[in-house]
Formats: sequence, structure tokens, C-alpha cells
Amino acid sequence: MRRPTIKDVAAAAQVSLKTVSRVINDEPSVQARTRERVRKAIDELGYRPDPSARSLRSAQSYAIGLIYDNPNPYYVIAVQNGVLSVCRETGYGLQIHPCDSSAPDLAAEIVGLVRHARLAGLVLAPPMSERQELVNELVAHGIRLVRIVSSAADPQDGSACIYVDDRDAAYEITEYLIQLGHTRIGFLWGGKSHGSSWERHKGYEDALRDYGIGVDPELVVEGDYSFDDGFRGARRLLALPNRPTAIFGSNDEIAAGVLAAARSSGLNVPYDLSIAGFEDSPFSKQSWPALTTAKQATEEIARHAARRLLQEIREDANTAPLPNEGFSPQLVVRGSTAPPRPKG
Amino acid sequence: MRRPTIKDVAAAAQVSLKTVSRVINDEPSVQARTRERVRKAIDELGYRPDPSARSLRSAQSYAIGLIYDNPNPYYVIAVQNGVLSVCRETGYGLQIHPCDSSAPDLAAEIVGLVRHARLAGLVLAPPMSERQELVNELVAHGIRLVRIVSSAADPQDGSACIYVDDRDAAYEITEYLIQLGHTRIGFLWGGKSHGSSWERHKGYEDALRDYGIGVDPELVVEGDYSFDDGFRGARRLLALPNRPTAIFGSNDEIAAGVLAAARSSGLNVPYDLSIAGFEDSPFSKQSWPALTTAKQATEEIARHAARRLLQEIREDANTAPLPNEGFSPQLVVRGSTAPPRPKG
Repeated sequence: MRRPTIKDVAAAAQVSLKTVSRVINDEPSVQARTRERVRKAIDELGYRPDPSARSLRSAQSYAIGLIYDNPNPYYVIAVQNGVLSVCRETGYGLQIHPCDSSAPDLAAEIVGLVRHARLAGLVLAPPMSERQELVNELVAHGIRLVRIVSSAADPQDGSACIYVDDRDAAYEITEYLIQLGHTRIGFLWGGKSHGSSWERHKGYEDALRDYGIGVDPELVVEGDYSFDDGFRGARRLLALPNRPTAIFGSNDEIAAGVLAAARSSGLNVPYDLSIAGFEDSPFSKQSWPALTTAKQATEEIARHAARRLLQEIREDANTAPLPNEGFSPQLVVRGSTAPPRPKG
Repeated sequence: MRRPTIKDVAAAAQVSLKTVSRVINDEPSVQARTRERVRKAIDELGYRPDPSARSLRSAQSYAIGLIYDNPNPYYVIAVQNGVLSVCRETGYGLQIHPCDSSAPDLAAEIVGLVRHARLAGLVLAPPMSERQELVNELVAHGIRLVRIVSSAADPQDGSACIYVDDRDAAYEITEYLIQLGHTRIGFLWGGKSHGSSWERHKGYEDALRDYGIGVDPELVVEGDYSFDDGFRGARRLLALPNRPTAIFGSNDEIAAGVLAAARSSGLNVPYDLSIAGFEDSPFSKQSWPALTTAKQATEEIARHAARRLLQEIREDANTAPLPNEGFSPQLVVRGSTAPPRPKG
């Protein structure tokens, strides 16, 4: 049976095409009785308007949602802007939903948001995107989503994602510090709920092992992706009898905290202490000295995630799924790193 | 005539209350013909569902929009979080719309956004909120909005706003610098499209005049609310034969740029140069030394704007308009300011 067109609706309702489109677009300029007639025809024929039109029932689904839980404003704004740029190309609205990734009923909360706001789909940022059981539950509720995850390779776990190889970039940073001559390299963790924290730590360990340096547990401190934890962690490392000559903070906020701790201890950066961050946040260029870091194309990554989501929303379910895409952050060398001072 | 209730609809359509609410909530579990009957009854009776329900036609209007144009991620995130906290209390979604305040067809763009996404109303942040002709045009299109504006007093221009007394706070900061003994006080403008830039500059000038110091035009530099303009402006002021002993940056980003410029010129802050910012951004506490600034309760201000908007959306148009509310940023003294070094 041929798919009904707007012409069929107009004929069945005995109105003009313009009137049908007015009803589809929910314009007020149509009389109640006429509107009813058109809606009746739409239902009886099972007419599905073209995605570029605005059907009464699907109108709400011309917005997508962005779910995130991240303390770093620069990261959040970059993700928002990336998704928004695609929303604008395609005429979709963006609803934002920062949430608490540790909330016990998170899946129910997100399902509620999607139903309530009738969102066409979701871009899931870390760490929510990396919790398989959560993702499965959302998918089981028929929610379309694309995830941004940290992974050294395509997870190929069946649900769409854009993956970022944090491990490789962290390896590069650590390797660079080793090549400068550092052997006592401290590492400050990001939040363990983030896959990127584990991946960055893995890259740090792999590089040390590959260069035969080995991992000294006293040089590794846990914490969150925040300035304060960077400050605290660095104070602890700098208080060690045999303190590190370089500290790798898992993101730029942490590294900025390390920089403040170094200053408060009267250390000259980079000559007394080398510092590296991760993400290439605007302030990593603005700090003094500017931070060596890994350039993560956050806005571009978010753009790809949104593009992928909107392609899936607008295509028929039975077209072949698109491939996942991978990104690799690149080492950016700035003034905060230098060879260690010769001993004595 | 008595306002029709859901019971009247159920009676007219000869269905159960539950069925009516299913249709109102756009649940799929209702047969097409039944749904039509209920919709017909709703239209004929002119039934308006309770805001807590989700009517088919008003469903889209359970989202509000936030319109802003600001380069400062900390400010933007604070405004978003303030509005979101109220959206969550009331079950509304938030669509974000950063835009270019200098776009020629901005009014048309915003009207299009509201219609397209069927937003129930808007929170307008500066500078859009401060452009009277733009605001008038939006109101003329029947768009409900609440503005966040910079003003020393209630503008009382007929449209709802939350106003922030930047002038008074800028006066306080300048007065504090004067009381420390500074007479050569530089001022770095924020973007002139922002009312707050003019108000903060006015506060600076008023304080100088009141203390009989007078304004030296060579100490005042124009720019935007950005780190880079703070850096550039400070370099220019520090190159003066008779350079200022204190610089007041119109926001913390500018002040951070001044701090970087001072460091790159080998100046000791605060002893060679005092620096003050505005806004109390997180990094104003994190910089070294921490910045003297004015604490602006951005999140709280946004919360009040959203609460005001949602009250207006949910109340009948014929209830008395709520009063506008004013906020005054408070001086916060930190390590970046000190008395000037005695000459020679």
C-alpha cells in the first residue's frame, strides 16, 4: 500500500493543501471544526508528515537533549556549542540536562525527561555515556541516543558513539616528560566515574613501563577533575621527601591547581617543577606559564555526536547503522614543561 | 460562564476521565477514533487543561528559552544553572539559545525560535535584555519574557526584569582602591553592547569625582569582557610614562588578563600593581594572588528571573504584575590589591 501524502489528506478532509499544512504546523488561523476534520483524515489515513514539516504530534520531537555531569564550564560550553551548531543547521532545539551521575534513579529521571519534553533523542556525555546498564535501559525504553565515550578503540557494543582515545594522548604527554629527562613524574587522577580518568591513568602507566621506569604508587593521587583537587594533590606530592620533578594533572583544571600549589610553595615552574594538563581549555593558554596539555577537539567531537544523532532521527530505522567515529587528542607543548634541574 | 473541567470533556466525549487524560498526555494507548472524539470535545468546550497536565497543544510550551551572548563560560553556566533549578521545580524544560547580539535580524531570529520550539517564554540575559526596541518587538509578538538588566534603579519601563546595580558595586571597588592610597587607577571597559559596561564605568568615574581625583582619559581603555582584551589593555596602561598603580578590570576575565600582563612585565602583584575584577568567578579565587572583585550572585539572579517568568506563564494574564527585583554585587577583598609603593 502506497504511503499517504498530504494531497490525500486534503482530499479526504475536503480542504486546501495550505489548510492541511496550517493544521500540521499548528497555526491558529484554522477554525476548530476544520482542524478536527483535517486531524481526523490524518489519523484515518495514517499520514506521517515529512520531517521538514511540523506535525502536531511530532512537534515536540524537534528538540534533542544533552545530558552531562561535569564541573568544568569550559568543557560543558564547548559540548553545548558543538551540539547547538548542528541543531541550528537542522532546525532542532536543544534542551540541556546537567544531572548527578551518582543519582540512584538516574535512568528513570532521564526517561522521564525525554517523555515529558518529548525529545527526539539524546547526546550523552561522560560519565553517563559510559555506564552500560544505564545506556541499555535508555535504549530499552526506545530512546535514541549517541554517546561520547573515552575509549582506545571502537567499543562496538551495539549503541552509537563517538570515542576519544584519551589513553594514547596521556601516553604521549608522559612520554614527552620522560624524554625531557623526568623520571619522578606525579599523576593526579580525575573523577573515577569518568572512563577518561582510567584511560589517562592507563596511558601514564603504559608509558612509564615502556620506558622501564615503573610506577611509584606514592606519586599517584586520586581526586576529581577540579582545581581544588589539583591543588590538594600537588601539595601532597610536593611534601614528599623525594618529590616529583614533573606532575601530570588529568585535566587543565587540575593542572591549574598544581600551578597554584607550586607558586604557594615558592617553586619556579617549569624549572623547579614541570606541569602538564589535558584538554587545552582556554585558560591553559592564559595561565602563567601556559600549560603543556593535550588538545581535545571537544566542540568538534560534540558536533559529530549531534550530527550522528540527527541522521539517525531523520532516517528510516531500516537503513544501515552509521560507523562510530574516533578522535585522538594531540600533544600541545607550552611553557609549563622543561628538563628537570640537575641534582645538587 | 463556568470554566469547563476534564469531567465535562469526559461526559461530552462519553469516555472515562482516564481516557481524557491519556489523550491530553498524548499517550499512544488510545484508539484514533476515541482520540478524535475527545479532542473534538476539548475544542468545542474550549477546555484548558491544568498546567500540571500535558495537553497536546500546550505540550510544547512546557519549555522556556534562555537567550544570551556572553564570552564568559562561568557566567553562562551560572545563569543556566539558576534557570534550570527553577525549571526542575516546575517541570519545565530549558532550551538554550546563545546568539549574536549584533545580528541585524535578531528579533526575527528570536521570534522564529520561540514559534518553532513553541516556547512558553524567555529569560533574556544582557545585552539582548537591554535593547528596548528588541524587547518591544518581542513583546509585540506576544512573547512572554523576563529580562536580566544592569541598572542602578528599577527601570520601570513596563516589561518584567531583574536589575543588577553594577554602578554601585563599581563605585565601591574604586572607592576601596582610593582608600588604599591609589590615585592613578586604570579602568578597562567591558563590551559597550552591555549596559553593565556603562554602569561599571559610571561607578568608576563617580567615585573618582567624589574623591576629587578626576578622570584621566589616558587611564581608560575600551575593550570586551575577555582575557585577551584585559591583557592588551593592561599592556597599554603599563607602557605609559606615568603608569597606573592600580587597574580595575570590568570583569574577572579582564582582570585575569591584567594579571598575566603584569607578570609578563615582571611586576609584583599587588605591591607594584593592584588589580581588581568584577563578578567573583571561581577563578578569581584560584588566580595567584586571588582577585579583589565584586560578588555578583549570578545564579541567584537567574533563579529569580526564571521564577518570575514561570509565575507569569502559569498565572492568568489579569492578575496584578509582580514587582521587579534588584540585586547589588558586594565588594570582596582578596590578595590582588594593596597600598601603592611609596615613590622613589
